[in-house]
Amino acid sequence: MTNLRFGLIGTGFMGKAHAIALRSVGTVFPNIAAPILECLVDSDLAKAANDAEAWGFQRSSDDWQAICQDPDIDVVDICTPNYLHREMALAAAAAGKHIYCEKPLGLTGAESQEICQAAETAGVRTAVGFNYICNPLLVVARRMIAAGEIGDAYNFRGCYQEDYLSDPNSPFSWRCLRNQGGSGALADLGTHLINMAEFLLGPIDRLFGNLTTVYSQRPDPVTGVLRDVENEDIAQVLMTFSGGSAGTMEINRIATGRKCGLTFEIHGTKGSLIFDQERMNELRVYQCDDPEGRRGYRTILGGPEHDDYANFCPAPGHGLGINDLKVIEVRNLIQGIAEGTPVFSDFHNGWRVQTIVDAIEQSHLNNEWVNVNEGNQAK
Amino acid sequence: MTNLRFGLIGTGFMGKAHAIALRSVGTVFPNIAAPILECLVDSDLAKAANDAEAWGFQRSSDDWQAICQDPDIDVVDICTPNYLHREMALAAAAAGKHIYCEKPLGLTGAESQEICQAAETAGVRTAVGFNYICNPLLVVARRMIAAGEIGDAYNFRGCYQEDYLSDPNSPFSWRCLRNQGGSGALADLGTHLINMAEFLLGPIDRLFGNLTTVYSQRPDPVTGVLRDVENEDIAQVLMTFSGGSAGTMEINRIATGRKCGLTFEIHGTKGSLIFDQERMNELRVYQCDDPEGRRGYRTILGGPEHDDYANFCPAPGHGLGINDLKVIEVRNLIQGIAEGTPVFSDFHNGWRVQTIVDAIEQSHLNNEWVNVNEGNQAK
Amino acid sequence: MTNLRFGLIGTGFMGKAHAIALRSVGTVFPNIAAPILECLVDSDLAKAANDAEAWGFQRSSDDWQAICQDPDIDVVDICTPNYLHREMALAAAAAGKHIYCEKPLGLTGAESQEICQAAETAGVRTAVGFNYICNPLLVVARRMIAAGEIGDAYNFRGCYQEDYLSDPNSPFSWRCLRNQGGSGALADLGTHLINMAEFLLGPIDRLFGNLTTVYSQRPDPVTGVLRDVENEDIAQVLMTFSGGSAGTMEINRIATGRKCGLTFEIHGTKGSLIFDQERMNELRVYQCDDPEGRRGYRTILGGPEHDDYANFCPAPGHGLGINDLKVIEVRNLIQGIAEGTPVFSDFHNGWRVQTIVDAIEQSHLNNEWVNVNEGNQAK
Amino acid sequence: MTNLRFGLIGTGFMGKAHAIALRSVGTVFPNIAAPILECLVDSDLAKAANDAEAWGFQRSSDDWQAICQDPDIDVVDICTPNYLHREMALAAAAAGKHIYCEKPLGLTGAESQEICQAAETAGVRTAVGFNYICNPLLVVARRMIAAGEIGDAYNFRGCYQEDYLSDPNSPFSWRCLRNQGGSGALADLGTHLINMAEFLLGPIDRLFGNLTTVYSQRPDPVTGVLRDVENEDIAQVLMTFSGGSAGTMEINRIATGRKCGLTFEIHGTKGSLIFDQERMNELRVYQCDDPEGRRGYRTILGGPEHDDYANFCPAPGHGLGINDLKVIEVRNLIQGIAEGTPVFSDFHNGWRVQTIVDAIEQSHLNNEWVNVNEGNQAK
Repeated sequence: MTNLRFGLIGTGFMGKAHAIALRSVGTVFPNIAAPILECLVDSDLAKAANDAEAWGFQRSSDDWQAICQDPDIDVVDICTPNYLHREMALAAAAAGKHIYCEKPLGLTGAESQEICQAAETAGVRTAVGFNYICNPLLVVARRMIAAGEIGDAYNFRGCYQEDYLSDPNSPFSWRCLRNQGGSGALADLGTHLINMAEFLLGPIDRLFGNLTTVYSQRPDPVTGVLRDVENEDIAQVLMTFSGGSAGTMEINRIATGRKCGLTFEIHGTKGSLIFDQERMNELRVYQCDDPEGRRGYRTILGGPEHDDYANFCPAPGHGLGINDLKVIEVRNLIQGIAEGTPVFSDFHNGWRVQTIVDAIEQSHLNNEWVNVNEGNQAK
Repeated sequence: MTNLRFGLIGTGFMGKAHAIALRSVGTVFPNIAAPILECLVDSDLAKAANDAEAWGFQRSSDDWQAICQDPDIDVVDICTPNYLHREMALAAAAAGKHIYCEKPLGLTGAESQEICQAAETAGVRTAVGFNYICNPLLVVARRMIAAGEIGDAYNFRGCYQEDYLSDPNSPFSWRCLRNQGGSGALADLGTHLINMAEFLLGPIDRLFGNLTTVYSQRPDPVTGVLRDVENEDIAQVLMTFSGGSAGTMEINRIATGRKCGLTFEIHGTKGSLIFDQERMNELRVYQCDDPEGRRGYRTILGGPEHDDYANFCPAPGHGLGINDLKVIEVRNLIQGIAEGTPVFSDFHNGWRVQTIVDAIEQSHLNNEWVNVNEGNQAK
Repeated sequence: MTNLRFGLIGTGFMGKAHAIALRSVGTVFPNIAAPILECLVDSDLAKAANDAEAWGFQRSSDDWQAICQDPDIDVVDICTPNYLHREMALAAAAAGKHIYCEKPLGLTGAESQEICQAAETAGVRTAVGFNYICNPLLVVARRMIAAGEIGDAYNFRGCYQEDYLSDPNSPFSWRCLRNQGGSGALADLGTHLINMAEFLLGPIDRLFGNLTTVYSQRPDPVTGVLRDVENEDIAQVLMTFSGGSAGTMEINRIATGRKCGLTFEIHGTKGSLIFDQERMNELRVYQCDDPEGRRGYRTILGGPEHDDYANFCPAPGHGLGINDLKVIEVRNLIQGIAEGTPVFSDFHNGWRVQTIVDAIEQSHLNNEWVNVNEGNQAK
Repeated sequence: MTNLRFGLIGTGFMGKAHAIALRSVGTVFPNIAAPILECLVDSDLAKAANDAEAWGFQRSSDDWQAICQDPDIDVVDICTPNYLHREMALAAAAAGKHIYCEKPLGLTGAESQEICQAAETAGVRTAVGFNYICNPLLVVARRMIAAGEIGDAYNFRGCYQEDYLSDPNSPFSWRCLRNQGGSGALADLGTHLINMAEFLLGPIDRLFGNLTTVYSQRPDPVTGVLRDVENEDIAQVLMTFSGGSAGTMEINRIATGRKCGLTFEIHGTKGSLIFDQERMNELRVYQCDDPEGRRGYRTILGGPEHDDYANFCPAPGHGLGINDLKVIEVRNLIQGIAEGTPVFSDFHNGWRVQTIVDAIEQSHLNNEWVNVNEGNQAK
């Protein structure tokens, strides 16, 4: 296994999170070859240089196109604002680079399809930053469902609620513009939840959506002048899964008090599951075949018996953090490249998720149920 | 204040709950005149006699019509299966009795309207058994919202999940029949949630519903032969309130693991509220104006500073139970009769709730949004 | 079974709680004969008359001695301040009345012994108001331990924390005086915890105690002058049980923020139990023989499969309250009288608990371990 | 600031945790110079070489003495079993190396004193691996207490419960031997709790301890023959702090069901604090000056406003994990070396903690209170 050389574009929230993960993944997972932090790219060259030094990159650049074509780069890692994903991913694919891109993959389903197909044509490995599903307890949840431990699932309720825009004075940003952020709460939060829903229960079949924008204007961060917000604060979705389960989703970027409120509850014929990302080291399970009078939700604390946990810590209940999920995500990509196998989540998943986002918007506009059971279903 | 004489019809779950409440309300609330448990009615005369003796009723009967016309009865208390409410309530109204009826008021909106208007015509006081909103902490929640303690509410998510029918072998009953139970999960559970939503946030404006019946047949309890279930196991609703808030509701009678999962979460511009009936002595509140770095959901434990709690116990955190809510409900009715003021929840609320249930069914059938902002809005 | 006539002395917190329970016990538990609320006694005759009317007593009095000797009284129910228990109980016993007395039984072990032995000599049934152990989930816990469901218990940690005196300006009362309240936090709270510990795990063998008085003076409620507090705010105890388990207890009446913080955690060789009175409808259980990777604390919600719960409500998870525990306690007493069997908790338990309180004080004074494994062990 | 070269001795649980932290600390905290993973040492040379390669060390060795004297090593990092700490630390100090040592510092107070004084004589910086107090929320807790946000603290209850030895068949190891592990639960768990107690509330003044060994023999991992366990499974401690607070500690390595049950509760005159390491991203705070009727424990979720959190993630509530605490610990050491300031926790703290462990054992042996308020108090 060779040590893959990463070119990371972007130095914001996700840029640093990727850097931390790239830095430690080799130590956490000794069975993979540690990646090389080859080059850090930012349009601000001084910032690129400074962060590259601080974060342990070998070099820095302000020329992302050059990095995409650089023979000393194996993986292009895209952590820029949403509207830049397409151009960068297409350039990387054209140059035959493996691509690691933050979510959402593209601004729309069509854009995501274009990106996905370019990567497939190029024959490169891809990954999208849907980190939450890398949680070992969610891998357990998925396996429990697949093995029938809660019987046949017949209801899903998923929420992703944060309050990062609940203050009406939170300034206008690219996230509020259609042509830069795409959708609103759906792009930032909903994509995670949609991907998680299908990760757990398989493809969504049809859906009905409703979008609400509570704060239709926000002040420009420089001038203070109010500008129009072009996308939704809240998305609410009814849906059914191809496997037969009913479901709802609620996505909210102004959910006052909620910080990382990514939650789900799944009811099946023999049991149920509850999860809350704010307590990401706990999975709650109810099983009907527990003895009468002794039934109840069991809180499973993550431990070394749960998949990747042991690589971080041999003792149970000591707790993983959000950055550890990113480490697992990077491991998945590196392993996928080494073994030539698909990564979960890859660009196909990213496209699929965006197809569903589009369908929610279409449903909202037309007040009708929309089928999403054709074409690019998750596998 | 005279001691009102109650004639209670029905000796099941709710019959006994009413009896316990009637028995203790005078001791808990010394400012009202204790009701007299005048007569207990059951179609099985021996059972009526036996339970009347056990529960402290003065006499018993198997003739509900007679009770409705009995001059020694002031209040007719209806705790029979849903399909009997209409006939009994109409008879009681015709005889000029005050009426206390378990939810749902009628099988349909039209039936509920007929009942409500008959009582209004008769000029009698009425109450419907939506006991959960009698919780002192929910009265606090309502007052907090009204006083702007969480700012303007802009999102509501309510659930009522139980698992009393999650076992496919749970036998067929009148609850599964349209002409006896009316709707399914909506009638048993949804009516509580709808009433609570409007209690907290005012009238719902429009809604979109989706109904699912997972178990379309259940075994007859006597013959074991499978019979067709005629109403829904799960109802999912998107909605908006007249006050501007978005909302969702999820109602589920097969939610494996949930025993009394009546929950809500409300987000406002300045804070939020979370409640779970399974922890009915706790109300969680988030307030944006707490100091930075010290914000978080606060768990308020019910105590004597919260309305009616002090009548049960002068010490905080000692805990009320479900039957205590029924005591408050009975107090509300007795006080309303004594003071000639409307009870919350009365037949108008019962009709209003049923209007919304009908709208959910209509929306589901026609796949369209339905307005519910006209006519009999809650006040 | 005859309807026992109760003479209740005291109209405070516990007086009303007893009245509510006496009023409803016959309805909740139809298999017992409902008690008769014969007479309510208070030294303030007007208050006695007023509350008797309000609470449903047949008559009232300001002469407790007369009530103790009244041939129309079967049970003397003592809800007065601690220092009055002895005189009243002795009078009731001398007159051959059954006795129901609030905790603590006496101010000291010696006083409690005198009371207990007088009742035994008189051959009357007795009960002490240790209501918390009447919780159906604690009866389940006791049975689980006895049946070995958590193996051999080897550690117990019990706390009873409230904050009713955490404000230094909370006024001086009889509770602060040795000759009126007896001990401090130990009398009010500790007696409950000690009784619960032995209810669950059998007799305590030896102990080491430490007492702390944080607020050594409090203002007189009338004059505002500071008066000396004569007993402890906090008691901390190390101990071992005769069955071999280690243990600790912490009792605190100034535990800022805690309202009814009666909690325990018990570890055994095969599992463990956790309980918190503030969530009295939940019992948490861990069992080692759950499958690997699926272990965790299970939260059992009280339901009809748990002993007396079904008498209050046939549906699980709907929740009991503190007053419901008192109803069960009264039922226990009435049943004990009817069947001629000992009540748990009776005066023997009350004496036993007081013996342990004395031992904690003695240990604190002498800085030494004290044996409590002789004489009046709980059975 | 120079890039310090670390020589890490030991490749077990803590060895890997240190390696992960050393690897990522420079990226997480760009304001410090990233350390160099110079050499990994294990008595098994092949393992040392293999892990060095996997974890990113430049070289490997089986000769810890050589590393202690190696001019290309700046910091000796000791992650070996307890009984090896002394010899290694003394060698490192003699060679003038900075020293990072896992807890417990020495097997006894005397040994810890010798180590501490050797380091002080050598004038080197030191750190002990009490990682839990590096949690940003605990730094907040400490500051809240110091600033009087909960008034004067008057009670502390701390527990550290795990169940890693609750299975009687868990094999005998060096941890069970006095001359290799030192004390039992106290060494593994209690040292963390003692350090945390003094970190929060200042020095302990006097204490009374009780030790229990439930499993006095365990099977040899090779032969299966039962061997004598020489130290305690459970330690229970009563204590007072020099600042006036009462306190208890309970430490248990056989607490069935508890995985990382490091908890505390502190009551003060104006509020209280509750923490549970199994939910390490939450701090619960009660404040008396919240408005009446709105008081309750507030759950603060860790976020960027809480000290070091922002270096890991700019978004609140996303969650840190146990390994992130180690990253902060390493940062503390590197910063202390760079700035020439003491690290918290350093060898002085390690010695202090061991003094208290010794006092608990002495108290248990002699059944008497032991003063710990002299000599090496924490600062």
